[in-house]
Amino acid sequence: MIRDKSSANGSADAGLERVAIIGSGNWGSAIARIAASNAKANPRQFHPEIIMWTHEEDFEGRPLTEVINSTHENPRYLPHVNIGENVRAEKDLGKAVANATALIFVTPHQFLEATLEELSGKIRDGVRAVTLIKGVKVEGSDMTTFASVISSRLNIPCSALCGANIAQEVAMDLFSESTLGIPTSSSGDLESLPEVKLWKTLFQTPKFRIRVVADVEGVCLGGGLKNIISLAAGFIDGLGWGANAKAAIMRTGFMELHDFCLEFFPSTTSSTFLQESCGFGDIIASCIGGRNRKVAEAMVKTGKNISELEDTLLDGQKLQGALTARDIHNFLHARRDSVKRPGGYPLFEAVWNICYNNMEPEKLIDNL
Amino acid sequence: MIRDKSSANGSADAGLERVAIIGSGNWGSAIARIAASNAKANPRQFHPEIIMWTHEEDFEGRPLTEVINSTHENPRYLPHVNIGENVRAEKDLGKAVANATALIFVTPHQFLEATLEELSGKIRDGVRAVTLIKGVKVEGSDMTTFASVISSRLNIPCSALCGANIAQEVAMDLFSESTLGIPTSSSGDLESLPEVKLWKTLFQTPKFRIRVVADVEGVCLGGGLKNIISLAAGFIDGLGWGANAKAAIMRTGFMELHDFCLEFFPSTTSSTFLQESCGFGDIIASCIGGRNRKVAEAMVKTGKNISELEDTLLDGQKLQGALTARDIHNFLHARRDSVKRPGGYPLFEAVWNICYNNMEPEKLIDNL
Repeated sequence: MIRDKSSANGSADAGLERVAIIGSGNWGSAIARIAASNAKANPRQFHPEIIMWTHEEDFEGRPLTEVINSTHENPRYLPHVNIGENVRAEKDLGKAVANATALIFVTPHQFLEATLEELSGKIRDGVRAVTLIKGVKVEGSDMTTFASVISSRLNIPCSALCGANIAQEVAMDLFSESTLGIPTSSSGDLESLPEVKLWKTLFQTPKFRIRVVADVEGVCLGGGLKNIISLAAGFIDGLGWGANAKAAIMRTGFMELHDFCLEFFPSTTSSTFLQESCGFGDIIASCIGGRNRKVAEAMVKTGKNISELEDTLLDGQKLQGALTARDIHNFLHARRDSVKRPGGYPLFEAVWNICYNNMEPEKLIDNL
Repeated sequence: MIRDKSSANGSADAGLERVAIIGSGNWGSAIARIAASNAKANPRQFHPEIIMWTHEEDFEGRPLTEVINSTHENPRYLPHVNIGENVRAEKDLGKAVANATALIFVTPHQFLEATLEELSGKIRDGVRAVTLIKGVKVEGSDMTTFASVISSRLNIPCSALCGANIAQEVAMDLFSESTLGIPTSSSGDLESLPEVKLWKTLFQTPKFRIRVVADVEGVCLGGGLKNIISLAAGFIDGLGWGANAKAAIMRTGFMELHDFCLEFFPSTTSSTFLQESCGFGDIIASCIGGRNRKVAEAMVKTGKNISELEDTLLDGQKLQGALTARDIHNFLHARRDSVKRPGGYPLFEAVWNICYNNMEPEKLIDNL
């Protein structure tokens, strides 16, 4: 492992970016592998050590951080992949971020609030952040992206990276694309912005290609809402209705996602959804290969309910698309007197009804 | 079979629309089933008999038209589906169209020219047409949609119907959507146009839903070009590169298709491709379920060339996507000095190179 004992203010690495990854799950570990490789390849811009804040847990009798730091693999969340000798797992959040100039947020979203609370007062001035967390925070009639939560809580700029990025495939270096959303009001050349140079140098590889848009909210929203569509696609697969029906449902869901984002987040840009990996691409990948699709297919084929399938197919984890469908239903219900889209969002509502109100999947198409 | 011996000018059915379907293949037969059912259900608007011009051939010792007219099935191109007792197969093109007020073109596109030649002078005044033929006609640096060919050759208005419509699934009454493109310069309510009323009444069912756009060219082009993308998606499947890569290639191809159409057919509308079944939907369906995808996957997995696979997988028929890729390559080559899109159309070119120049499929992503 490369260890540099000099402080961030020491002469040897003054001016170098120091990266901390907040989270060490499947996606966090996969992105650590890329960041570590790119930091090492760009020694004039980056300190080589990538610190990965890791929730300490036991792995086969040893602390997980110790296993990661000695084997350079995360056997709990990304087994059999060398993530790089210059990744250092650190269980103490304060220590992980103490010298960081660049923070990558990739925690499970239910832990973000507590993490931000703990970070308060511990980060350096001028630090920049990017979030890879998918999902949106809904409270009654309010909805917020996690980029916005991070930015306002820590009072720092926050970009977002999201796309058709099934973590295991990225970790295997299979070809993928992603979208970087940058907080800027500049209408000029995005590629020349310091944030873009920072994150693209850190994340882009020949097999992981990044396109940039000036739309952080849009980048966050696609990944947050798309799992509702994956469930709908999975229901169609379960019913055996074929490719035409699946294409029709994906199209309908995609239009609802697009219109929903533009209605409730007026700063977002239509093309972010229609043309970028975080919109079009992510929907395709998760309707072909995602686990929400798989569970929805099994719901129809086995007749089992969500919680039974969460136990058997998701190792006890919650089905993200169902939670999102419920959040969106509650949000739309709270705003029921002011929804502008003619006919509302019938596919989103149908998915919620199938998940939580025993609606028959065959009725998915009735109100479209 | 319902037979009405009165002429179109007779008193009993004066003013009724009389429908002739020009073509009786897989898609022609599937659409005949819908048209026959809808004509029968709307006796105040349609003469009940749907005439289906059928290229006469032998089927197990009997003329195909005779088999269709006695069994109400087309065992050669759509076996085991009752297409309706009010469909009458007619081998004589002149007789088929003599009284028709509404022509549905659904021949294989290589036969369209000869068919139009033969139709000249045989159709009634005021007849309206719709084309369901996918593909584009390319001659050197000229490219024309088949709607445009029909319209200019017969001097009649021609609409287009195209979407995520795998014929077998539509014939089985599985849920599908389609897009109707109407030739109009009206910016008003499209639903009130006579063409829209005619074609929607004839084609729409609860399981075959139609959205209307004022963009005939766009509706034709999506279906014409999308098979190039299906081949690219199939190569990715053959390589086993996963869902991220497939989504990336579909997104890239979709953007090339979109930009190509807007560059060379300035009358087309961006939303036709990005939001309608004939664009987004058709690409999804053919990249999931189409036969171009299947052959491309087999090319990579077996190492066989196109003509070997056409023999074994397509019953000797030509691989449409490869022909289209060649047409587009020739077209772009002829216009090489004036292509406006920065970087050109690298995915289209790569598919052509893989099909005809032994380029390795792994190189598909090199120039994107």
